[in-house]
Parts: sequence; structure tokens; C-alpha cells
Amino acid sequence: MESRTLQLVLQYDGAGFAGWQRQPDTRTVQGVLEEAMQRLCESHVSVLGAGRTDAGVHALGQAAGVRVGDRWSPVTLMRALNAVLPRDVRVSACHEMVPAFHARYSAISRSYRYLVGTDAASENPFRAPRELAWGRALDRGLLDKVAAEVSGEHSFRGFAVKGTAPSSDDHRCRVYDAGWEDREGGLAFTIRANRFLHHMVRFIVGTMLDIASGRRDSGVISRLLTAGDNREASPPAPPHGLYLESVEYPRELYMVTG
Amino acid sequence: MESRTLQLVLQYDGAGFAGWQRQPDTRTVQGVLEEAMQRLCESHVSVLGAGRTDAGVHALGQAAGVRVGDRWSPVTLMRALNAVLPRDVRVSACHEMVPAFHARYSAISRSYRYLVGTDAASENPFRAPRELAWGRALDRGLLDKVAAEVSGEHSFRGFAVKGTAPSSDDHRCRVYDAGWEDREGGLAFTIRANRFLHHMVRFIVGTMLDIASGRRDSGVISRLLTAGDNREASPPAPPHGLYLESVEYPRELYMVTG
Repeated sequence: MESRTLQLVLQYDGAGFAGWQRQPDTRTVQGVLEEAMQRLCESHVSVLGAGRTDAGVHALGQAAGVRVGDRWSPVTLMRALNAVLPRDVRVSACHEMVPAFHARYSAISRSYRYLVGTDAASENPFRAPRELAWGRALDRGLLDKVAAEVSGEHSFRGFAVKGTAPSSDDHRCRVYDAGWEDREGGLAFTIRANRFLHHMVRFIVGTMLDIASGRRDSGVISRLLTAGDNREASPPAPPHGLYLESVEYPRELYMVTG
Repeated sequence: MESRTLQLVLQYDGAGFAGWQRQPDTRTVQGVLEEAMQRLCESHVSVLGAGRTDAGVHALGQAAGVRVGDRWSPVTLMRALNAVLPRDVRVSACHEMVPAFHARYSAISRSYRYLVGTDAASENPFRAPRELAWGRALDRGLLDKVAAEVSGEHSFRGFAVKGTAPSSDDHRCRVYDAGWEDREGGLAFTIRANRFLHHMVRFIVGTMLDIASGRRDSGVISRLLTAGDNREASPPAPPHGLYLESVEYPRELYMVTG
């Protein structure tokens, strides 16, 4: 009966959800997806996400795994889900995977994007829940400089919620890319790494914005990366500017069809 | 104590609200505003809207009236409200009005805007709750033609929910402007009139889109405006594409300051 393993690629506006993870009496992305799957499959189907996005965090390419019966091809399931899902969550792609695929443990990298609004309209109610409205002047060159420092393999203990990992080895992450780009109405920070600690992107963005607006000295990032004491980090940037952009898996986990 | 009459100009993203009107145990715009006023003024303050937008309908310039104590100047109240309101509703302006001002009955005209998305990205979860994703080809010239027919004074009985007004006189509206314009990713319809019947803009847009995509003949609008039988109207376009753009009041209701 349950013979296909499918990967759902998901986009959602986090503003209307109390995060990814299913919770009783609360609207969550996993909850809404599992309800839709229940409706289509007439039985409970677990929807396992690559990561649990916090309340207010958005997704442009969250990944999730489901196991379904043979009658559900990737395209059939994607169309059926999009027909029953609410407008603020959408399946943008669906792939058949080998049975060993695990949405969380098979991931080899993830990318996040953080949107900062710098013009006057960034506080309007259509943009404000989806980017951080930042009123202070930002030194664009400093943003590029500190983003470059974050790239590479480091212990990110200084940018993690205290006490979430017991040994220092657990804080090592390989950052493949990190950089700021200009966009209409503001800026975007993109970061790709093999793994992320809880709130890590938000701690990094919060500290970078403080440096680039002159509230902190520019040596903070390198000190945090070497000393690893998170008391020096700035408060994490708020969740509503953050987007899970994509989750990457090894090519061999995708079923070759045709 | 209560000696100032202020007009709040409000923007809100309707996606997170069950409409304007206060209801128990439901998140509504009026409810959220009255809670914020209660917090600031430490007593109940009624927030009277110019009109009750339905669930899912947005506002770029809804108007509302409040009566507050002398210590609240327009700018003080606007700043205090924006500091406590959730991110999806915002006070964009605040004006002191003469005591006779009534947000609903003093209005001389209202403008609505309806957004239609015609590109592939209009179904993404960031746009889909804020515009109507329309997949069929639209005859742009026909849209202009039927919009022109709507302008002027007519009985809009054919574009009203049945049975909402007892006499035919109650269906007369003066439409000052009505027209379509192109915008990135789609189209926008704007209409300004002295008054609107319930669901009138949505009935007009639904009928226009059916005509311009070849599902109805182009004479429908003029027949509806003369015969006034709403059984010939298309189903109303969904609420999530609709924006209350502005509410206009006579100049003499504004207090002249300084």
C-alpha cells in the first residue's frame, strides 16, 4: 500500500502560522499539511519537514517527506494538495525519492534568506510581516566585509542559543556562501551551510546589522567566531524577516524515472 | 475629558482578519484597534469604521473615527497606536475633525481597487492571499470598454446581493471613475463612487472578467445596469483581491490647526 516516498517542496507565508511543528489547537504548517493529506488519503500521513521553522518564519523551498500509496504520482499529489491547501501554503514541486530518503537526516545543505527593508514603505502592513523594517543607516561595505568573515568552517557557538548543544564539536558548521545583495526597497542576506544551529541566522543578522549601523565595533564577528561566547552576540533579528530558501539532498536519493 | 474627534486612516492586510467588525473570539480589525485603544486610554473607546470590510478584504486607506481626551494629538495617537498594533495593521495618517464628523455618514465618496494576477507567480503563497490569480487570457480592450459603461449614475441593483435594499431608489450610485490599469504581474481595477452596495465591486469585477475571457457576451453589463436583475450577474470575484483604497470627506469637516 505505502510504496512511494515523495519529497514535497513547499512555499509558505509564515505570518499566518505558529511555526512548522504540529501543535493542538494552533495553526501550524505541518498541521495544515497533515490535514490536507488526511483528506486526500483518508488516513493519517506524517509530513516530516527538513527543519522546524519558528513562528513567523517563511519558506521559499522547505522540503518534507511523505510516504504514500502507488496511485499518487508526484504530479498527482502536488495538484491534489494545491487544490485543497489554503492560499498561504503551496507545493511548488514534488519528487519521487528512494525509500532511504529522510527529509531531515538526508539533507546535505540548507539555504536561508533574510530580508531587510530600508525604505519608508517597509513599515506598511503588506511588507512589515515579511521583512525587517530597519530605520538606521547601514554601511554597505561593512556588511560585505562581515559576511565574508562568516564564510568557511567555524564553531558558531557564539551565534547559538545557549545550552542547546553539550559539546563544542556540535557547534561546527561549514558555511559555503554568505553575502548581502541589494533589492528593491532594501537588502537581502543569503547564507548556505551544511547545518545551522537554532536561531543561528537570526543571531548573525542581528549582529551584522548592529555593526553596519555603528552600534557595535566591526571586530565582534571574528571574536564571536573564535571565543564562542554568545553573550557578545546582539539579540537575534526577529523571525519575520527570515526565509528557508532551499534544502539540498544528494543526487542519488532522487528516483530516476523513464 | 473626551474632547477631540480624530479620523484614523488605516492600512491592513485582510488575510489575517475575519473582516472589520468586532466579533467575540475572532480576530477582526475593529477588535484589534479597540484593544489597542483600550490599552492606551485605559478605558473602552469605540472605533467606528467608514465601512465594514468583509473577511479577507484589505485596506490601503480605510477611515475610522475615535473620540479621545485632549492629551491625544493626532500625531501622538498615531505613534502610540503604531507602537502597540500588530504588524498587519497600521495607522498611516491621523486628522483632527470637527465634532460633527461621523466616519460612516460623513463620507462623500469611497474608492476600491481590485488586483488580478495574470503571471505564473500569482499563485505563490505571498501573492495569492492578496490578489486574484486568473489563469485565462483576458481581452484588455473589452475590459476598458465595459469599465467605461459602469461610469456614471445607474441603478446597481443587478450587482447587489439580493434583498439587501427594499426600494429600487436605494440601488442608485454615482460612479465617478472606473478603469483598468496594467501593473507588474497583472492588472488592477479602480472604482470611485458616492456609495457602494454590498459586494457591488466584487459582482462588477466577476462579471467583467467573465466578459473579457470570453465566457459571457459583452452586452451583459449594460443589460444588468438597465434591467437590474442580479440573476444575470456572474458570481462575485473573491474578497482577497479587494482593497478599500480611500474614503473622502468634505474639506470643512477637517479642523484647521495653527
